[in-house]
Amino acid sequence: MADPRPKRIVLVGAGNVAWHLAPALEQAGHQVEAVYSRKPENAGLLAARLRQARSLSSLDFSAIPADVYLLAVADQALPGLLKEARFPPGSLIAHTSGCHPLSVLDKAGANLNTGVLYPLQTFSKAKPVDFAAVPFCVEGSDVESRAVLLALAHSLSGQVHRLGSEERKRLHVAAVFACNFTNHLLGIGFELLQQAGLPGHLLHPLIRETVDKALAYPPFSVQTGPAVRGDQAVLEDHLRLLADQPAYQQLYRILSESIQDNPDK
Amino acid sequence: MADPRPKRIVLVGAGNVAWHLAPALEQAGHQVEAVYSRKPENAGLLAARLRQARSLSSLDFSAIPADVYLLAVADQALPGLLKEARFPPGSLIAHTSGCHPLSVLDKAGANLNTGVLYPLQTFSKAKPVDFAAVPFCVEGSDVESRAVLLALAHSLSGQVHRLGSEERKRLHVAAVFACNFTNHLLGIGFELLQQAGLPGHLLHPLIRETVDKALAYPPFSVQTGPAVRGDQAVLEDHLRLLADQPAYQQLYRILSESIQDNPDK
Repeated sequence: MADPRPKRIVLVGAGNVAWHLAPALEQAGHQVEAVYSRKPENAGLLAARLRQARSLSSLDFSAIPADVYLLAVADQALPGLLKEARFPPGSLIAHTSGCHPLSVLDKAGANLNTGVLYPLQTFSKAKPVDFAAVPFCVEGSDVESRAVLLALAHSLSGQVHRLGSEERKRLHVAAVFACNFTNHLLGIGFELLQQAGLPGHLLHPLIRETVDKALAYPPFSVQTGPAVRGDQAVLEDHLRLLADQPAYQQLYRILSESIQDNPDK
Repeated sequence: MADPRPKRIVLVGAGNVAWHLAPALEQAGHQVEAVYSRKPENAGLLAARLRQARSLSSLDFSAIPADVYLLAVADQALPGLLKEARFPPGSLIAHTSGCHPLSVLDKAGANLNTGVLYPLQTFSKAKPVDFAAVPFCVEGSDVESRAVLLALAHSLSGQVHRLGSEERKRLHVAAVFACNFTNHLLGIGFELLQQAGLPGHLLHPLIRETVDKALAYPPFSVQTGPAVRGDQAVLEDHLRLLADQPAYQQLYRILSESIQDNPDK
């Protein structure tokens, strides 16, 4: 059973994930004791959004007791930070990364319990996030740690999943295609529209419908457009139109080939 | 001013666009007189969805009077069809294609009025379409033809735009990026999830949020993920994970490079 008791939390990081996660933890009844950032002003800004969190600029947490030390920093910053940080012996530390395995936390030294609390969502400071609908992927080095993190996840969201490190990494790659790459293509769509002197909102109903359809039917089964129809004349016409933007022309060509090579088409 | 009077329409084509457009025209008060398809059974299936449309398998429409002959066929089929079809002299014929210019209709011969009624949406037979929110792009060879098609578009949708052939083609390329390519990436995301033994719905909140964000903020300004962070270790890790799927690996590499090369990142 999930342990519903409030937890004392130290949040290590003040980037996009920490920015939204910290207030959500407070709203779920937990106590964010302190916020660390490499840049003191960022820790201060995030602490100012919270009830009574201290703002820290040292990675020595040995005198700051907490139930969970949540490491919500950029993936590339995590290994270095783990070597430098100090936690009270026997603490539970957990990262929020999709790609790092649980075992990366071993770099923080022995005598610690470890876990993962990965929110599968895209976070930008500008846009509020509704955590109730965010899937959380949880892993723990031991039964007790996992139970603490599962309870934490359940206090935030209705979608909590136990996932191993390998599964989580595969999920992360899928998320890069479905989110990061999709966002980039939408950006290109709007840019091409702007270049044609047309308003961006023209594309909104099409984008909404594309996604509604892709969530309701297997996307490969509802693929539309010149590539899946094998309309070589239109493909060549479009490539000509992109001649002065070779990077987009290359993307157009390779994505069209990928659609045409799809055995499910 | 838009002419609100009901029109008699012959629909040439029974594919994805015609399948949804024909009943929508009837619901807007127009009369679909006849439906043509190269495959008689498809014309029959579509006619059966309509009040009293005849099902045609000949392209000689010279004895079938109508206010508008709407050519809703696949882009690659249009030029050949135009050479074969016969319309009553002085008729208005209009295509529904994003990529063909207005002038393609000249292939149908002289003594015809021509126009374009392009619904900017993705159509699959399986999924109903709400035309009220579909942007229609209208063009006409003369004032009167344009007025008829504008009125037809306004009877279907609240979003009607006058667009020239060149603008429409540029819009179409943007739509391929924002819709066709996006759908393909979502399909890859779900496929990778399935390969990992994970349920597809895990990605749904992420996809919804990605699109909500991309419609609320300029997408390039809210790009997230390893590529925009320049996280080479994660990029290489993901490429290794895709080693047995070289087509997806190539897409991953080129899309990541495109994100990293973006001057707005």
